Formats: sequence, structure tokens, C-alpha cells
Amino acid sequence: MIFTNSIRSFVGIMTKRQLLLLSSSRVHGHEYLEFAQDDICDLLNLNKVSTILFIPYALKDHDAYVKTVEKPFKKWGFEVIGIHTTNPLEAVNKAEAIFIGGGNTFRLLKTLYDLNLVKAIRKRVTEQGIPYIGASAGTNVATVSINTTNDMPIVYPPSFKALELVPFNINPHYVDPDLNSTHKGETREERIMQYHEEDESYTVLGLREGSLLSVEGNVAILKGVTGARLFVKDKEPEEFKVGSNLSHLLKGN
Amino acid sequence: MIFTNSIRSFVGIMTKRQLLLLSSSRVHGHEYLEFAQDDICDLLNLNKVSTILFIPYALKDHDAYVKTVEKPFKKWGFEVIGIHTTNPLEAVNKAEAIFIGGGNTFRLLKTLYDLNLVKAIRKRVTEQGIPYIGASAGTNVATVSINTTNDMPIVYPPSFKALELVPFNINPHYVDPDLNSTHKGETREERIMQYHEEDESYTVLGLREGSLLSVEGNVAILKGVTGARLFVKDKEPEEFKVGSNLSHLLKGN
Repeated sequence: MIFTNSIRSFVGIMTKRQLLLLSSSRVHGHEYLEFAQDDICDLLNLNKVSTILFIPYALKDHDAYVKTVEKPFKKWGFEVIGIHTTNPLEAVNKAEAIFIGGGNTFRLLKTLYDLNLVKAIRKRVTEQGIPYIGASAGTNVATVSINTTNDMPIVYPPSFKALELVPFNINPHYVDPDLNSTHKGETREERIMQYHEEDESYTVLGLREGSLLSVEGNVAILKGVTGARLFVKDKEPEEFKVGSNLSHLLKGN
Repeated sequence: MIFTNSIRSFVGIMTKRQLLLLSSSRVHGHEYLEFAQDDICDLLNLNKVSTILFIPYALKDHDAYVKTVEKPFKKWGFEVIGIHTTNPLEAVNKAEAIFIGGGNTFRLLKTLYDLNLVKAIRKRVTEQGIPYIGASAGTNVATVSINTTNDMPIVYPPSFKALELVPFNINPHYVDPDLNSTHKGETREERIMQYHEEDESYTVLGLREGSLLSVEGNVAILKGVTGARLFVKDKEPEEFKVGSNLSHLLKGN
């Protein structure tokens, strides 16, 4: 009975999440965050958000990063607070919405752990339902683990486990193999396949730049202007077009 | 006095190292390891090596990997033993020469730690002077740390610290920015610059595919068919052509 209750409670909690997981903030031919403007504004307006808590830890210069992010958000009618200008834990606990931007995923996750923010963010998003927007590194840390980031491991975080807002992993900036390349480094697909050779590995959604995953409770829809490639262990990779319903991924491996 | 002695002892030890650190094993237009054939054969013959201990942990299928590696080495007159077919620690301790091949750097380093091989390899190479050949991931682990690998963090090693056969880091498969690209992920140079924003970071030698660093004691020469780009913290990146003397890097940061 306890088991049943805990499952009910888990499903109950997760039905509150409202996520927009962007492959990247910058897309060729668009201004910063522009390709996702409608989805971002709809989510924030629906939740009557006026101020967004911005987490700039993936880049070194936090103040400069806030300025970049303020530009579109102010234009769309939202205030932005940089978490580094305040008490981080308190800021998370009273945030109306959270946006975590791109940069280096290792640096970002390490800082979230160093400042004890991992559980606090998870709780606010999954139990209390505040909107979460992630781009690139901010999308990586929203998943089970950062095992499928493209970033250089410039610092050593205490774990690769991340916020676990969804029960699978994402590879942001997913790129298809360049058939004309003479470079011998692994393709992105080969790297993800290597990940799936490991015992502890999860399904990976390869989000091309210009795509984003919208998650509302237990419903996940692929949005944006490009598609995604799904890597399920021991299966052939599968293509998904914009508009695809990917809710089955929310059930986990 | 202890300090002085320990420095003397360190320099004394390091004069024994004989390393060939290849950017990659595969280079466009060449067979496996072919571009480095002369350097590899010279090093092994000079040391009267007949059997090479091959460490295939960077790839999942060790037996298949040994077959790939045996092909050129047998042709050049050397036997290859896969470390996985024997007692790994004993094999290291009696190896005439060690070759660590490419694949996933995280998986490789984790396995070296799991099997207690890090100190043993370091001792054999730096104190006892057996030849060490590394390619790609095998070059990454020969440096101070794997902080500048390009690989996906598919497993979590107990540390990013590596064999420390040289006092700097290498970025293998170094690629110049593609000026025609519309992709918004960071360029390799940008990633290395992000590494240098961190307090604990070392000089990084960006080895293009087709280049290798030969280290004999305290002399380092850039060899192969392409060049390298050097990243020293707080300085402009610097280009080095094949044949350049890079011995100053062996003095550390």
C-alpha cells in the first residue's frame, strides 16, 4: 500500500511540472531566444509570472549574462533577477519562474551543487509547479544526468546526476553527421551510442538547434522549428518532427 | 634541503620518460596509425621492444580493438598483448612498452582507476622509462587531467586527474573554427578559453589530427604532418609548426 501511495504521490507531483527545454538559446537567423518567444511568453503569462529568476552559472561573467537575457525578456514584459545578486537559496524558494541559460554544463552543475540548489529547484518545479525554462546547459541539467552534454569537463562536479525533472536525457545542439567531413573525431550519434553501451544509461533525445521540448505534467510535445532524433538503448534511432507527442518518454526507460 | 632533493628527484625521474602523444590514430588519407609509423617504430626499436601492452579500455569491445591495433604493429614486427586478457597490474609491471588507444576518455580513465593502474603506469613510464604511446583518449590520460577532452561524459570517473606524464593538458583532434558554420555550439577554441577561466587550469596544447608530440626526458618536439595551437592562460593562442621545440611546456605552468 505504501508502494502504491508513493507511486500515486510521484505521479501527482510530476503532473505539476511545466518545462520548456530548449536545445539552444541561439539559432541561426534568429535573435537570442527569439525562436521560442511564443512558447516562453505563453507559459509565463499563463502562470501570471512577472519576474523570472535567471541562473547564469554556466558562464563566468554573470552580470554580462544577465544583460544578454534581460534584452528579450524586458521586451516581452518580464523582469529578470540574476540569482547571483541575491541569496541563491531564498531566491529559488520564492521564484515565480526559473530560467537557466547555456554555457558550460559542468560549471553549471557544480555550482548548483556547491550552493545546495539542486533539491531546492527540483522541489519548486516538480512539487510546486513553477515554470522552468532551460537552454542548452540549462536543458542538460533538467534531465536525469549530464552524461550526454557536449561540453568540455572544465571542472569536476560532485556527481553527474542532475535535476531529474524528466526521466530521460537530452543531447542539446544535436547535429547530424557531416558526410563531407574528413575529421576523425566521433560523430554525435557515435558518442550517444557509446553512452548506451554503458549499463547505467538512459534514453537520449537529440534536440537539434531550433527545437524545444514542452512538458506540461505528463504530456511532452516537440516544438520549435526543427526536429529531434531519439536514441533508445538497443533500438534504431528514430526521427520526430515538430509537433510530435513524446509523452511516452515521461514514463522512463 | 628536502625540497631541493625532491625537485632533483622529480627532474631525475622525468628525464626517463619516452612518450609519443598522438592527436588521433586515424588521419584522413592514412591507414590506422600510419602517419606516425616512423616515430613509433624508431621509439620501439631503440628500446628493443618486441611486445607492446595494449590498453583498449576506451572502447567497449576489447577483443575487436586488439585486432585493429595488431594489424599495423604486426606488420611493423611487434607483438601486441591486450591487457584485458591477462592480470592488468602484473601486465603493466612487466610491460616493455604501453600503447593506450582512443575511444571514450571518461570510460578509459574510470577503468584505469577501477583497476588501480594509474600509479602503476605512471611509475613504469616516469621512473622506469618504458615507452608510452597514446592516441586521442590515450593522449588525454597521459596529461595532467582530462579537463580538455572532447568526449561525452558517459561514465563518472573518481577524478579528472590523469597520469600526469607531462605537466600540461592536451586537446586531441583539435579543430579550427568553421567560418561557414551556422551551428551555435561553442568552437573548440571557445571551450578551451572557458577552461582557462577556471582557477585550476593548465596550459593546453591543441593537437590537430595528424600531429603528435614526442617527449624524450625534458625535450618535447612537435611531429607529424600538421601543426598545433597552444593555449596559455591569459595569453593569445600561438601557432606551432611541425618540428617546433616545445620543451618549455615540460616546465609546467
